[in-house]
Amino acid sequence: MSIETIIGDPVRLLLGDKISDAYKQDIYVPKVADVHAVALAKTTDEVRKLVNYAIEQDLKIIARGAGTGVAGAQVPIHGNELIIDVSQMKQIVGFDEATMTLTVEPGVLLSEIQEYVESRGYFYPPDPGSKHSTIGGNVATNAGGMRAVKYGTTRDYVRAIEVVLPTGETVELGSLNIKSSSGYDLKNLLIGSEGTLGIITQIKLKVLPLPKYKQSVLLAFDSVTSATDGVLTILANGIDPTALELFERGTIVYSETFTKQLLPLQTGEAYVLMTLDGNEMATVTSRADVVKQLLQSKAIAVLALDVEQEKLAWKLRDHILVALMEFTEFEMLDEVVPINRFAEMISYTKELQGKHGISVINFGHAGDGNIHTVLMREGLDQETWIAKREALLTDLYEKVAALGGLPSAEHGIGIIKKSYFEKMIHPVELNLMRKVKNAIDPDNRLNPGKLL
Amino acid sequence: MSIETIIGDPVRLLLGDKISDAYKQDIYVPKVADVHAVALAKTTDEVRKLVNYAIEQDLKIIARGAGTGVAGAQVPIHGNELIIDVSQMKQIVGFDEATMTLTVEPGVLLSEIQEYVESRGYFYPPDPGSKHSTIGGNVATNAGGMRAVKYGTTRDYVRAIEVVLPTGETVELGSLNIKSSSGYDLKNLLIGSEGTLGIITQIKLKVLPLPKYKQSVLLAFDSVTSATDGVLTILANGIDPTALELFERGTIVYSETFTKQLLPLQTGEAYVLMTLDGNEMATVTSRADVVKQLLQSKAIAVLALDVEQEKLAWKLRDHILVALMEFTEFEMLDEVVPINRFAEMISYTKELQGKHGISVINFGHAGDGNIHTVLMREGLDQETWIAKREALLTDLYEKVAALGGLPSAEHGIGIIKKSYFEKMIHPVELNLMRKVKNAIDPDNRLNPGKLL
Repeated sequence: MSIETIIGDPVRLLLGDKISDAYKQDIYVPKVADVHAVALAKTTDEVRKLVNYAIEQDLKIIARGAGTGVAGAQVPIHGNELIIDVSQMKQIVGFDEATMTLTVEPGVLLSEIQEYVESRGYFYPPDPGSKHSTIGGNVATNAGGMRAVKYGTTRDYVRAIEVVLPTGETVELGSLNIKSSSGYDLKNLLIGSEGTLGIITQIKLKVLPLPKYKQSVLLAFDSVTSATDGVLTILANGIDPTALELFERGTIVYSETFTKQLLPLQTGEAYVLMTLDGNEMATVTSRADVVKQLLQSKAIAVLALDVEQEKLAWKLRDHILVALMEFTEFEMLDEVVPINRFAEMISYTKELQGKHGISVINFGHAGDGNIHTVLMREGLDQETWIAKREALLTDLYEKVAALGGLPSAEHGIGIIKKSYFEKMIHPVELNLMRKVKNAIDPDNRLNPGKLL
Repeated sequence: MSIETIIGDPVRLLLGDKISDAYKQDIYVPKVADVHAVALAKTTDEVRKLVNYAIEQDLKIIARGAGTGVAGAQVPIHGNELIIDVSQMKQIVGFDEATMTLTVEPGVLLSEIQEYVESRGYFYPPDPGSKHSTIGGNVATNAGGMRAVKYGTTRDYVRAIEVVLPTGETVELGSLNIKSSSGYDLKNLLIGSEGTLGIITQIKLKVLPLPKYKQSVLLAFDSVTSATDGVLTILANGIDPTALELFERGTIVYSETFTKQLLPLQTGEAYVLMTLDGNEMATVTSRADVVKQLLQSKAIAVLALDVEQEKLAWKLRDHILVALMEFTEFEMLDEVVPINRFAEMISYTKELQGKHGISVINFGHAGDGNIHTVLMREGLDQETWIAKREALLTDLYEKVAALGGLPSAEHGIGIIKKSYFEKMIHPVELNLMRKVKNAIDPDNRLNPGKLL
């Protein structure tokens, strides 16, 4: 079957010059290859036919959503890739309140999901920074975000996925059942596999009742180490925060400049911004009080935020990335370490800035050990930047590994972290991943050269 | 290397007549084969050597813990199996409070883990009925239990596992990191794989701070349908119960007779026993009040239990199985359906008892859709029992499948549910499982004939 027969609508089939560079690069990975075609599928059946077409024509396949990935996972590198763009598969298929299950196509945006369920009194906990990412991409990378400390990551909210396999077969993995001891967990194998094992065509998500109350608390500390000590104290005392963000003074100033607004606390070198949620106001307030008591000697200041302050503080936190993009050239990492090594990791990044001559600032999800280390390019020419960056990253990921961490908490390995990943992971485990990939995709058709 | 060299201590190496029948059967699956040897390993290194020995001698391998499994997964069926019994690998290796991680060997009992962490103010949420099962077996079956409705199953508390692969290689899967988008999730693939992909030799478990307060509520309903309606109401209102058990009058009478004590409510055909936990007394009490308000019109009676009543009610619930074993011959199933199909499933089991002439009673974890249907043998001779049981199970699992359910919530497929499992699962998914098994264990050495 010709690709024009599969995708009858010419608007949904891009060939040759009609394929923009946006399909060939991402924010950090430049264009290195062209692609065979871009097909904007509308249905699972079209995806299935496209996979069969790729088999017949011996093409490689890249599945793609909104293209907000930052690890190069959706960037073509061979030249013979068929990009299956699922951003037009954007129906919210149904919402079953009895099982609290939302069924969506992979092109639905995270922001659309959040709005849809919140307007009905429900709550989809995963909260990655990029609200314009698609849920398909979120599942393919096991996206994390702010609320992982209490609620977990995307993985924890996927009840089932419909997948088109590299054989062209379609299968649903997972179910609406809450427990299972019925065979291998293939659903979790697919989640986070970055499009290398199957193409996700439908997703059944678990949602929760929306908590009725929330309260944010801002804490200022004289150092990152004191701040992370504070974080461990909070976690050890059953406070169960929804979000527990840490940022250096050096990161939030970008947001302050960008928004022309100031964080409610101005003293200190590092901040912790925490939200508590719950269905009883008394619980939320009493936990905020416990935090105050626990941390009044460790922190410079502890401030329970009123509604306006809460909005402002979270706006500033959310705008760190946008502000950085406005004012500077940089690369943002997403390494993760066990929560008790967070301070040590951040402190090591500071050593690296002296050693390699690249300024480094950090913010991150302190409650779950995920650091966003930001390497500031500061006008370095391309050659110097590439050399310094690579030397710094080699040191940095060596430290991450030494601390028992991983190169990617939520963005994926893609191609940008592949060489580091291969060094950090145990060869037996890497070999096992390759065996699994080869068993499911023996022709290496799906997103070849990514992740593995 | 000879097996006597690997296991130098003759007490830990059982051969020929020294191998008791306990190694060759379980509560439901009779002895059908002998075994090559039983080796009680003490270390990962011994397990590794035993696997290499099995490779050299071309033996099959069954990993085994306390032998409390009820699906035949640890029963030899070929005659040339080497049983690696890990019940002597029973060290609690360490407890790291900073990351709330307990490291244990696979032979540690669930009850030992619960006691160890609770005495330190922590909490291991999974709570399968058999407290004398080993944690290794819990991981191998993804055991569930009472508290899954709030806290999830074993899978959700495994940070990492050390595994000896069928190649004899040792690898750690997972990590102490809370987030990961760093490669395939092989840890979850191994969890619940019933010893068919690797032998678990060490486990790092996540624990939580022990909730400070709890309150149980007992509700009586005039029918199972009203009771499951009540359950759905509780779940939809953000009550977040720790446990939400449902039992028919017909099951709890066995416990009452066995313990010679009565449930605090005596009216009604079905009961819901719920526990709430939390760190603020006010929250726990107010949720109990909300449950009362929500359900006073649906239930015959709602009783917030005092400490003595709570102990008694849970004792009666916990003793259902023991009481059944004391008074009758039966087979207990562990099917699971989406929570909104729970009533329909139970009601269907009642139809089956008329159709097939086997009495059926039910209890189960209503909050997570997991039903323990109990088939009462009631003196049927072996031939009649086998025929009637099989006819009933064929109908029952067909219904489970039609409702979107699964044959096993927490016990595993083993051999006892294999033929039903194969019919219920989509052939593409089954084939995918076989591909994965073949990729990791191409010689089909680990627990062959089980699950797949």
